[in-house]
Amino acid sequence: MSQLTVEMHPVSGVYLGTCVAKIKKNGQPDLVIIELAKGSITVATFTQNAFCAAPVIVAKQHLEQSAPRALLINSGNANAGTGEQGIFDAQQACVWVAEELGCEPSEVLPFSTGVIGEDLPMAKLKQGIPEALANLSITGWPQACAGIMTTDLVAKGVSREVMIDGHSVMITGMSKGSGMIHPNMATMLGFVATDAKITQGCLQQCLSDAVNASFNRITVDGDTSTNDACTLTATQQADMPLIDSTHSQAYQDFAKAITEMMTELAQLIIRDGEGATKFVSVVVEGGKNSEECLKVAYAVALSPLVKTALFASDPNWGRILAAVGRAGVVDLDINAIKLFLGDVCIVENGGRAASYTEVAGQAVMDQHDITITIQLNRGTANEVVWTTDFSYDYVKINAEYRS
Amino acid sequence: MSQLTVEMHPVSGVYLGTCVAKIKKNGQPDLVIIELAKGSITVATFTQNAFCAAPVIVAKQHLEQSAPRALLINSGNANAGTGEQGIFDAQQACVWVAEELGCEPSEVLPFSTGVIGEDLPMAKLKQGIPEALANLSITGWPQACAGIMTTDLVAKGVSREVMIDGHSVMITGMSKGSGMIHPNMATMLGFVATDAKITQGCLQQCLSDAVNASFNRITVDGDTSTNDACTLTATQQADMPLIDSTHSQAYQDFAKAITEMMTELAQLIIRDGEGATKFVSVVVEGGKNSEECLKVAYAVALSPLVKTALFASDPNWGRILAAVGRAGVVDLDINAIKLFLGDVCIVENGGRAASYTEVAGQAVMDQHDITITIQLNRGTANEVVWTTDFSYDYVKINAEYRS
Repeated sequence: MSQLTVEMHPVSGVYLGTCVAKIKKNGQPDLVIIELAKGSITVATFTQNAFCAAPVIVAKQHLEQSAPRALLINSGNANAGTGEQGIFDAQQACVWVAEELGCEPSEVLPFSTGVIGEDLPMAKLKQGIPEALANLSITGWPQACAGIMTTDLVAKGVSREVMIDGHSVMITGMSKGSGMIHPNMATMLGFVATDAKITQGCLQQCLSDAVNASFNRITVDGDTSTNDACTLTATQQADMPLIDSTHSQAYQDFAKAITEMMTELAQLIIRDGEGATKFVSVVVEGGKNSEECLKVAYAVALSPLVKTALFASDPNWGRILAAVGRAGVVDLDINAIKLFLGDVCIVENGGRAASYTEVAGQAVMDQHDITITIQLNRGTANEVVWTTDFSYDYVKINAEYRS
Repeated sequence: MSQLTVEMHPVSGVYLGTCVAKIKKNGQPDLVIIELAKGSITVATFTQNAFCAAPVIVAKQHLEQSAPRALLINSGNANAGTGEQGIFDAQQACVWVAEELGCEPSEVLPFSTGVIGEDLPMAKLKQGIPEALANLSITGWPQACAGIMTTDLVAKGVSREVMIDGHSVMITGMSKGSGMIHPNMATMLGFVATDAKITQGCLQQCLSDAVNASFNRITVDGDTSTNDACTLTATQQADMPLIDSTHSQAYQDFAKAITEMMTELAQLIIRDGEGATKFVSVVVEGGKNSEECLKVAYAVALSPLVKTALFASDPNWGRILAAVGRAGVVDLDINAIKLFLGDVCIVENGGRAASYTEVAGQAVMDQHDITITIQLNRGTANEVVWTTDFSYDYVKINAEYRS
């Protein structure tokens, strides 16, 4: 397992405790509790999958009732497809945390990630919760990053001190996920905390916009998970004026910082994509609207034929063009499209560009980071999604995950 | 290469000639000409991909102008993404065939399958066409089956004598395709001929319905191709009354036979799916309408996580349920769904079925042919699609195709 290479700055009012509860078979940390100081505001987004896991159902209910004082996260078991028992278990785990912290169970939000369809190992949780709480520390971020991992090879954290309206604000966050990554909110967990002073309304708007531009723009395999969630907590402890309008400069600066950090967290997931050997940006320019740009971008990003060609470092532009053609864009004129690999124009006028050489295309494909740009030339909308290639290891990891 | 194991009965009025034109690098047959007797009626369906290949454009134009007298098929080169040059080349090839046969160029339909983005090797075609014509024979079906193959491992043909209204009718057909298979009309070519006496209107209706129930229900990887086409020719030479109404019993019997044969040809493509180790039927029952049944069926059939689990013979029902959940069905109640592997109920009430055992699920998954049944229990519509698993070999074949 790769360790974090970034420094995770503490955020006032956020305490993290991690332990090995033996939910994961590999003996790695798998239980994390994040305690949030009184007065903190937390907003969240959850999976759009109709088959959502028990903790998602419980977390949504609790979030409607109370301001969260703690986040309880386990890896190794998703508590999904577990019916009524799963709901009961998620609620019970919140009760145990609440009893220890002296708060209401509805002030605890549960999150789970891992194997689907097996009951949560409650005895292990009951034993692990006090242990994780005993480790609570404002410097506990790196251990927590490791504790939320499943098939991840790399722990994912970002941290930044930004100046908002002349005042220092700290933002620190972590994410997990490497397979089953697709909008909206694929098997992806993200937890971001800041000490900013900001209203619930502004914070909610900020999270929605940031997730839409980051976690909802990454895809490994098109599979959205049952358990995805992303939280954004503002502890209100920074020495700064309250951000109470989305029109203020302070809000704009704050939202920009959050979006940048979430984009970084999202891209870390793609870079750690299951079996990934490439980091691929699919840029679509000149569409009539955002929707058709995304249709084209996802058709290309999800095409197994494009993804296997990327794995082979093969500049097979025909497969890209074929994916564009089947994306379902109305009245698409293939002859108007230009296609670029990096800076190299590979397609124009419905065929291979006159200036194109295999050598130039190959030079781009041999790189680790590849940008595919598709110019539709029929409007002013632009979009980008990030994805990976499909390798032998993708099949291996997903064929052997349960064994 | 596996040889045909079925007998291909000749169809009066249909002559097939095949040769090695060296378009394919492996020295296998790659050029096929099918001559159709005067008076034959031919109908066709083509790819829905906006980026359609030059031969598709030319074949559509020719079909509007004339009744086809010949089909010209080459494998090894798709003549797609070749711009104006590609159109010119496809037309020129038709001219060469027409000159030899003494018909109009518009009476020749061109078809190509193979690598995208490389110009058709015209010198090889010019040399091959007379050679293929010299081989024209009413018994040339098996050689033609081999001549249209690309990454196919198995030649695909079916042939049947059916009784329509007390008269013997012959139906013989072939298909090719093993990757890039997805509705509508993925890199799939199908050529079916019969000696039936039937009007153009009835024949067109018959083809549309049959393709919709067969070739448009198979998927390997979700990629639709630039070159797909399926033709149905009726030479009118059988000794029988004319079928001139879709309401007649004769039409119903004929349409049933064509649909059954096309379903068989389509399933042969799936059984030969690139790297396939499983033949999977995804059955969706009890939907509100056909559209939502297909949404669910394709979400499951195309999920890389489901497909890799199938490859691993892993009864990972959670991945199936997650795919159902993200299929985009409005107001889907996960708790009402029942999921079966073969006859084994694996999911009910939103979780693992009480009666389910891993042993029972494993026994189904260990088989080569697997049926996944999803009962939505919210209506009366049913659908089925056929697909394969995702294996190491799928990645290998598609990563190395051009090298």
